Amino acid sequence: MKNAIDILIDKIKETNNPTVMGLDPRYEILPECIKSKYGKDIKSVCEGILEYNKALIDATFDIIPAVKPQIAFYEMFGTEGIKCFRETCKHAKEKGMLVIADIKRGDIGTTAAGYSNAYLGKTLIGEKEESLYDIDFATVNPYLGIDGVKPFIEDCKKYNKGIFVLVKTSNKSSGELQDLKLEDGKTIYEKVAELVNSWGEELVGEYGYSSVSAVVGATYPIQLKELREIMPKSYFLIPGYGAQGGKAEDIALGFKNELGGIVNASRSLMCAYKSDKWKDIYKDEEYAKATREEALRMRDELNSSIKGR
Amino acid sequence: MKNAIDILIDKIKETNNPTVMGLDPRYEILPECIKSKYGKDIKSVCEGILEYNKALIDATFDIIPAVKPQIAFYEMFGTEGIKCFRETCKHAKEKGMLVIADIKRGDIGTTAAGYSNAYLGKTLIGEKEESLYDIDFATVNPYLGIDGVKPFIEDCKKYNKGIFVLVKTSNKSSGELQDLKLEDGKTIYEKVAELVNSWGEELVGEYGYSSVSAVVGATYPIQLKELREIMPKSYFLIPGYGAQGGKAEDIALGFKNELGGIVNASRSLMCAYKSDKWKDIYKDEEYAKATREEALRMRDELNSSIKGR
Repeated sequence: MKNAIDILIDKIKETNNPTVMGLDPRYEILPECIKSKYGKDIKSVCEGILEYNKALIDATFDIIPAVKPQIAFYEMFGTEGIKCFRETCKHAKEKGMLVIADIKRGDIGTTAAGYSNAYLGKTLIGEKEESLYDIDFATVNPYLGIDGVKPFIEDCKKYNKGIFVLVKTSNKSSGELQDLKLEDGKTIYEKVAELVNSWGEELVGEYGYSSVSAVVGATYPIQLKELREIMPKSYFLIPGYGAQGGKAEDIALGFKNELGGIVNASRSLMCAYKSDKWKDIYKDEEYAKATREEALRMRDELNSSIKGR
Repeated sequence: MKNAIDILIDKIKETNNPTVMGLDPRYEILPECIKSKYGKDIKSVCEGILEYNKALIDATFDIIPAVKPQIAFYEMFGTEGIKCFRETCKHAKEKGMLVIADIKRGDIGTTAAGYSNAYLGKTLIGEKEESLYDIDFATVNPYLGIDGVKPFIEDCKKYNKGIFVLVKTSNKSSGELQDLKLEDGKTIYEKVAELVNSWGEELVGEYGYSSVSAVVGATYPIQLKELREIMPKSYFLIPGYGAQGGKAEDIALGFKNELGGIVNASRSLMCAYKSDKWKDIYKDEEYAKATREEALRMRDELNSSIKGR
């Protein structure tokens, strides 16, 4: 049977596109045509966001393999936001996209199990187990060691899911802790990479990649290249392209034989309609068309760097 | 003006009790008298949990200074769970307790701001900012460096709140990453302790402790003692007492002049009615009385170790 990472790789090959669309909605970025249609109370705002997310999914599901909703932007709206998160995941799955839930959870064993059951597995409601969400992958924080990761790995095995563990993050201060050198000369992120390698051993699929893989930022190309060597079986979830400054030629360093990574773009895809590139071509109400156009441009740019290697 | 940590210390002094009651509910731990009253669907289960939480708060608010709901156990129940989390926080505050939300979030800047706004600050709904929850403190993960912590610190300043940053966690595998030695001979947790010290400098209150403080597990007494020296201005949130194995005499090592820490107990307080200590004395429907009794026992045990130093 194909495991979660095999299914993601198949989808990347089918669409010929190593992109995941980050769905990080905020009221401020909604097009006027949506803002004017809905009220400004929390329920209406979340309905507007759901319409926006769905329109972006409908405009790209045949050319982008996966979406990555960042749950913070839904938790910001309390229960209405969580409902919107769930409906967004469901809609993407119905359209055939895979869903990577960017939750970055990490906690002690029983608590990590609670998170894992909620987002990847099944949770005990009364006397029976139920799935709350339709999600394929989740992101996980490694600071607590294997205790915080193992419950997720168990659910990956049981429900054919996957995780991406934070190794080297894309933000400016990621080095403050992650780049510190250990007494054996290795950095912390290299050590975490080794841990993730060992955690993922049992879940290597047909393509030679593991469903327990890693987050490695596009903004650190040297580390991306280095980690590609250290983690040959890890498929990289690569944030930091576009707005954060990561370039296609940098990202290519995380790939090998045209595989190895999936690149996140959030603002540059969601807000394409407001960008210098597309704002004179597409009107406010054509926001989804602008996103599709930008997705095609990004796909071609990434492929030309990755396949040109 | 007193800052968040001053207010917590005042409350600890007033109740003469350095305990925080962890509210980590699961269906399995509910007393039969609650289980039999509610249905088994998700909404009913959450109503049962809320009744349970409220009863535990009502039975202890005069003797315990704070509660610590672990949000995983509410996220497990989706939107209904989040509603229950919010109502639990609200009820505790109405009873005069402080609320520490155990969320352990950590992310890049804009995302961390989303989390911080949601739990500590205010979030933009339509065109105005609103508070979603009534929470005093949140726990934060340091793996992303200052970027992931700064938005929380900003909200601490703006709204007089506090955070506890994970330094040395209570779980078995916490050493897998946190205990690794850096090239200068320090461990990672010592380095994180230094970072937390510097992050907290601006928020030191009247008692000499900072509203940006640390999580240090009771299960590692040597480290607890060491960190008390390294972090003289940090008030420790100490998990791991009771079910996880941390003892009162170990915990005392994190204190100085009878101050310095607040000790979490979740299962041992919530499930006191089922424990060997109290199950023959209190009936199922007297579960809240058993919790109060155990809270008094724990208070006295902690104080005798802390004040005996």
